[in-house]
Amino acid sequence: MDELRPRPANSHALTPVGFLDRAATVYGDCSSIIYNNISYTWSQTRRRCLQLASSLSSIGLNKGHVVSILAPNIPALYELHFAVPMAGAILNTLNTRLDARTISLLLCHAETKLLFVDPMSVSLVNEAISLFPSSTRPPLLVLIADDDELLPQQPSPTIHFYDTYEGLLEKGDPAFNWIRPKNDFDPIVLNYTSGTTSSPKGVVHCHRGLFIVTLDSLVDWSFPKQPVFLWTLPMFHSNGWSYPWGMAAVGGTNICLRKFDATTIYGLIKKYGVTHMCGAPVVLNMLSNSPTNMEPLKNPVHIITAGAPPPATILSRTESLGFVVGHGYGLTETGWDCCLVRLETAVESFSRN
Amino acid sequence: MDELRPRPANSHALTPVGFLDRAATVYGDCSSIIYNNISYTWSQTRRRCLQLASSLSSIGLNKGHVVSILAPNIPALYELHFAVPMAGAILNTLNTRLDARTISLLLCHAETKLLFVDPMSVSLVNEAISLFPSSTRPPLLVLIADDDELLPQQPSPTIHFYDTYEGLLEKGDPAFNWIRPKNDFDPIVLNYTSGTTSSPKGVVHCHRGLFIVTLDSLVDWSFPKQPVFLWTLPMFHSNGWSYPWGMAAVGGTNICLRKFDATTIYGLIKKYGVTHMCGAPVVLNMLSNSPTNMEPLKNPVHIITAGAPPPATILSRTESLGFVVGHGYGLTETGWDCCLVRLETAVESFSRN
Repeated sequence: MDELRPRPANSHALTPVGFLDRAATVYGDCSSIIYNNISYTWSQTRRRCLQLASSLSSIGLNKGHVVSILAPNIPALYELHFAVPMAGAILNTLNTRLDARTISLLLCHAETKLLFVDPMSVSLVNEAISLFPSSTRPPLLVLIADDDELLPQQPSPTIHFYDTYEGLLEKGDPAFNWIRPKNDFDPIVLNYTSGTTSSPKGVVHCHRGLFIVTLDSLVDWSFPKQPVFLWTLPMFHSNGWSYPWGMAAVGGTNICLRKFDATTIYGLIKKYGVTHMCGAPVVLNMLSNSPTNMEPLKNPVHIITAGAPPPATILSRTESLGFVVGHGYGLTETGWDCCLVRLETAVESFSRN
Repeated sequence: MDELRPRPANSHALTPVGFLDRAATVYGDCSSIIYNNISYTWSQTRRRCLQLASSLSSIGLNKGHVVSILAPNIPALYELHFAVPMAGAILNTLNTRLDARTISLLLCHAETKLLFVDPMSVSLVNEAISLFPSSTRPPLLVLIADDDELLPQQPSPTIHFYDTYEGLLEKGDPAFNWIRPKNDFDPIVLNYTSGTTSSPKGVVHCHRGLFIVTLDSLVDWSFPKQPVFLWTLPMFHSNGWSYPWGMAAVGGTNICLRKFDATTIYGLIKKYGVTHMCGAPVVLNMLSNSPTNMEPLKNPVHIITAGAPPPATILSRTESLGFVVGHGYGLTETGWDCCLVRLETAVESFSRN
């Protein structure tokens, strides 16, 4: 008798990037991203990501190369979660709150080949690059132009930008065949811990690990299809707890925002019918102490928080306003949401230090 | 610089069997299975499955061996979805509606080493074994004793039973270290197609494939945690569309039943607060034509149907009663719910014929 053995050769490597292909098929005409006056559908998002991946690829970025980004929760940061791995490269999102010295160290350690820079971070990058050892070649820089009214008059940079984000994107081929990981364990992101207990540690996650974490996160939070997700959790923080990929899996709408306070959040909840959001306990505090809205929400908004549990008074106040609060915990080094959602030994990561 | 490469050696093979370990930790004291007067918690279910796996292992069943079962949706069929792969063996669930000749052919083709038999199928098995070629050794037989009142006076079998289900289980070690698949692609189940278009085809699914299908099915149907799941879909039909494993992943309660009609279903919905069920279009027809309940359900019950879409009148009647209807489609040979939920190329299977 033949051995009972399915054929691995038939199968693709597991990757959360593939969720975008499916979203463009199943939810093609539905809203994927909303940011100020910008609005995309899932088929547009896929097209844009393929164009970007194509451009990155044609300037020589591929397997093993690190592409970094220094930006808040704007559409570019969302798109790069797909476009960078679609070029076969590794995404490295940097915390915009770090100082120039740390940014410089991380860019050197990551051997970043290309860095996308938000207008707000131009002078930070300028300083970080100036701190590079003379023997180290700095990355190509790409400016993410943005006409958000919150942005101050932009300083004329003394550094050279290779291109703008949209310029690079436009040059790309929307029919690009994206580069699938050859193996489940091919790297997809390089994150750095926050350095609370020692110097920041580099953590590499693989396609398989984040495929699993993404599905786990959706299952454990009982995500419905087509949620409206407000980006109050920084995507540079543990890849937004996997929800950039998760929103593609369930065809959600990503409400992007550069900066927020309680008024902004309540305004966006009302305007777009937000159903889900994530945030540190401080976000709950902000919401429950806001004088702008003390009447209950029209529809429940699910909010997941993590880290230390918020105080009972904040929890009960937040819930009395109509928020449904969930709590998670995780470590970047171990697959960040392992304690919350670990359905399986989902973690395949290692520290480079 | 070190190569950016997570270490596969750190990771377990993907398997839906591991969901049971987690359920016993997270939902240990919560109800796992209810059947007539029987009721188990998740920690009891895990203990029972480990005992069974231990017994199967100690009588020599392991890697590559096929264990078959011929039974309706009773707890044993649920438990064997975990216990058989936990012994490292391959589960083969047989359709109780097949005739003796087909059962005989399938048992021979599968080279079944051990067959669990429901009391209702004893004479069927008796006949099937009598049709074995004289050169083929029949499987060990284990009787699943059951005092369900629906069972007729049991005929005294002319065949020898090696043991009873509970007898075998009691001999097992609850501290058994279950046998993890060495590889994602190790086989977990052997199913047979229904033979609509030709002779039944054997289909082997691997641990990885069903891990993915199970998570996909939960995500695509937006399963909440701790649903109450009524087993109106036969588990022998494409492994109950992956929900035996899925219910462990979300800590649901499995309401088992041997046989059903509309009165039974409405009674169980009311008694246990059923939230979810699956079934062929004929089940929807049964529910919407029942004279016993024409008043709307107290709480919505999600029902997923598959195959040909039910007629519009049945759909609207079912929905007007408070059922929320979803529709899926799949093929056993390709990963059964690929069309419904394929988030990724989830299918790793092959036909043995």
